[in-house]
Amino acid sequence: MLANPSGESAMSACPSAVETSAPLAVLGSDVTVPLVTGGEVTYAALDYAASAPALRRVWDDVAAYAPYYGSVHRGAGYLSQLSTDLFENSRKDVAAFLGCREDDQVVFTRSTTDSLNLLAAALPTGTEVFVFETEHHASLLPWEQREDTRVTYLSAPRSPREAVETLEKALAGRDKGPALVCVTGASNVTGELWPVRELTAAAHARGARIVLDAAQLAPHHPVDVADADVDWVAFSGHKLYAPFGAGVLAGRADWLREARPYLAGGGASRKVARRDDGGVDVEWHTTAARHEAGSPNVIGVYAIASACKALSEAGFDGLVARERQLIAKVREGLAEVPEVRLLSLFGDDAPRVGVLSFVVEGWNSSHFAAALSAEYGIGVRDGLFCAHPLVRTLLGSEPGDQGECGAPEAAPGERSLNAIRVSFGAGTPDEHVERFVRAVKELVRDGAKWDYRTEDGRCVPVR
Amino acid sequence: MLANPSGESAMSACPSAVETSAPLAVLGSDVTVPLVTGGEVTYAALDYAASAPALRRVWDDVAAYAPYYGSVHRGAGYLSQLSTDLFENSRKDVAAFLGCREDDQVVFTRSTTDSLNLLAAALPTGTEVFVFETEHHASLLPWEQREDTRVTYLSAPRSPREAVETLEKALAGRDKGPALVCVTGASNVTGELWPVRELTAAAHARGARIVLDAAQLAPHHPVDVADADVDWVAFSGHKLYAPFGAGVLAGRADWLREARPYLAGGGASRKVARRDDGGVDVEWHTTAARHEAGSPNVIGVYAIASACKALSEAGFDGLVARERQLIAKVREGLAEVPEVRLLSLFGDDAPRVGVLSFVVEGWNSSHFAAALSAEYGIGVRDGLFCAHPLVRTLLGSEPGDQGECGAPEAAPGERSLNAIRVSFGAGTPDEHVERFVRAVKELVRDGAKWDYRTEDGRCVPVR
Repeated sequence: MLANPSGESAMSACPSAVETSAPLAVLGSDVTVPLVTGGEVTYAALDYAASAPALRRVWDDVAAYAPYYGSVHRGAGYLSQLSTDLFENSRKDVAAFLGCREDDQVVFTRSTTDSLNLLAAALPTGTEVFVFETEHHASLLPWEQREDTRVTYLSAPRSPREAVETLEKALAGRDKGPALVCVTGASNVTGELWPVRELTAAAHARGARIVLDAAQLAPHHPVDVADADVDWVAFSGHKLYAPFGAGVLAGRADWLREARPYLAGGGASRKVARRDDGGVDVEWHTTAARHEAGSPNVIGVYAIASACKALSEAGFDGLVARERQLIAKVREGLAEVPEVRLLSLFGDDAPRVGVLSFVVEGWNSSHFAAALSAEYGIGVRDGLFCAHPLVRTLLGSEPGDQGECGAPEAAPGERSLNAIRVSFGAGTPDEHVERFVRAVKELVRDGAKWDYRTEDGRCVPVR
Repeated sequence: MLANPSGESAMSACPSAVETSAPLAVLGSDVTVPLVTGGEVTYAALDYAASAPALRRVWDDVAAYAPYYGSVHRGAGYLSQLSTDLFENSRKDVAAFLGCREDDQVVFTRSTTDSLNLLAAALPTGTEVFVFETEHHASLLPWEQREDTRVTYLSAPRSPREAVETLEKALAGRDKGPALVCVTGASNVTGELWPVRELTAAAHARGARIVLDAAQLAPHHPVDVADADVDWVAFSGHKLYAPFGAGVLAGRADWLREARPYLAGGGASRKVARRDDGGVDVEWHTTAARHEAGSPNVIGVYAIASACKALSEAGFDGLVARERQLIAKVREGLAEVPEVRLLSLFGDDAPRVGVLSFVVEGWNSSHFAAALSAEYGIGVRDGLFCAHPLVRTLLGSEPGDQGECGAPEAAPGERSLNAIRVSFGAGTPDEHVERFVRAVKELVRDGAKWDYRTEDGRCVPVR
């Protein structure tokens, strides 16, 4: 399931060996949007790597539950008890989806970002953290929030093997205390799969633990925590077709149990009492509740569980096979446009999920993305994708070139200093990627049909 | 709008002066539940203080938006831009609902607990915090999470005036550095209104700032940040008829802007670059985005904005007048049962919202709550309501009597060491509180019709 340094993975299995899935039904598939050139088209949502549409199944489950929504955990009423069971059963469903070990904890958070900040806050004092500079900011930045955590940033490797060697070398010099490696399962910029299995072996061989950022992996590939032997995994509902504000951190209980509660409040506290000296004594839970203070987001959590079940039932073999076909369509189409340069760390043929970034010679990326939207009804993303060091490495541009994450940095027509990302998944029909490829070819060949300008940080058609 | 020490407030205005609202339409109002004694009844949700049902209007708004859901802030597509506008307009709607000052920030969190933990993390170094022991754990416990924050816990006052005097006395002895007072607008146990205006004046007179925990106030009363002069206010969507995992912290921008980002990740970071020494430099946003790293919970935030608009349009005058009628029904009904003792800090006639806690002589509270559910289809709550010191003070019981928040601590029939809470709001029909009063009378007079036992921490009917 996870790529190894030689690039072998389920991704490189023969595509015809498995029956491909049909696209799963998602909300918004019949939404039409106006074109600046006149008329309307159905919207092609090709920004799944940021936020995927809700699966129809997830929405239906949420809608069916909503009238039964009640206060969880401490309510005596029928709907409270039903909601409590639903919430705790969702925890079990997510554990099953992730292939967790029996004593792992599944903590509900609000997103991958939140999950990794929680883990960063839970690290034992003095933990050394090792993280590649190629990570999304959510995986790159939480560790230095703690002053007692030492972070080693590893330079961008140019192959899965180099990634493992880089990590091994860095770990060889580490102290004897607790250590954590943080690595993405699939890059949010290039879509490339990282050699998680080998990195895990390298980490464990040197007594370090590893957390897998599966934000981009889990929606596209099966994740098996016990089999992959990772210590923790984090992912978000909104990238997994369940956009209701919840996320997950799952894995080893020991560090979580011993850590200060992530949030202080009700639900996390078992017993609170004034002391004789005027202070307050608190006894905290040692279960997942320790880090889940406040009323839980029952709907968000149930939506994630629903999505996990929907993906498992659809079957990842078929979903992966289908996604490979879409990736092939995009890659083959873009290969016919010499002005397009795909961004890649591990080489064009590296196994990847349906996330591809590129630049177009002579085009400002924001301008190009705006034209895809306004003239073709295609929603992609432009910018640095919250992975500034990685994108700058891939573009060869200097630090300081860019302003805000994704904001157009220059007038339309100037040299591109950021990139365009197209991403898709289980709900994407062939027509969306076919339209995308056609649009890229037409824009490069004929230019935009409309004028654009930068307004409030967005590149927009001139009206 | 907020009670003063003499107990005057909008609550004590003549009820006949204002036309009362009809109950607002909520999800679940036609849900029926089985009774252990046979048959079914519509569920009476009387645990609004924990989680209120979604307003029908909120659900309809969410359902209408869901197909248009898209990635916010950095997506180039039509739905991304629509979603970004919706998200940022929701911020404006919430600011308007709260009567924020022009330069206040509205930060979206996941709950009141999260909001207060965020503020605790954002306090300047060495801030002194003053908080009454009577607060919900969400307001009581976050402050000591920071080792450099000194917390003074103030003993339970027995009148609004004593609250103000207690605070004034405590502040008189404080140092010159930054200080914060944290106070609830309406108690989650007694429903009593706190003298926020006077406490604010006392705090400001001594150079301290104040944060209002409006989790229980905002769903029932208008909150006007500028008029009340509080520095921050926090509330949750799930108690404000918008149970989609979002909450709010709104108020003064300066401390928030200067603080370390609450979560480290994308969205909060403007610019990230490797340094020559191998480290990473980060430039953080100084807007609300600084504390909102990760993809925002657009649906949760939009749901809150929708609820704010629905409450404002319904009009708080009518909602408050109606809630006073429901409170009167409950108080008058319970007053006819000598075995019932209402819990109160400020006296039975103190202005309050629709949240009342009580004990029944000779009854274990969990047993009583279980019978209300199983024999009458009424959902209340039993326990210590995540306000252990307050409930113990009110009950006169010793610390250590109770286990988990709300878990039955003893077999049915034993002396009650916890309490029962009934709470209601804008969606509650008269029939629910009438059924509740009738049920209390019948249970006290005739006893339970069924046998109950404690199972997995819940008091349940014996099958």
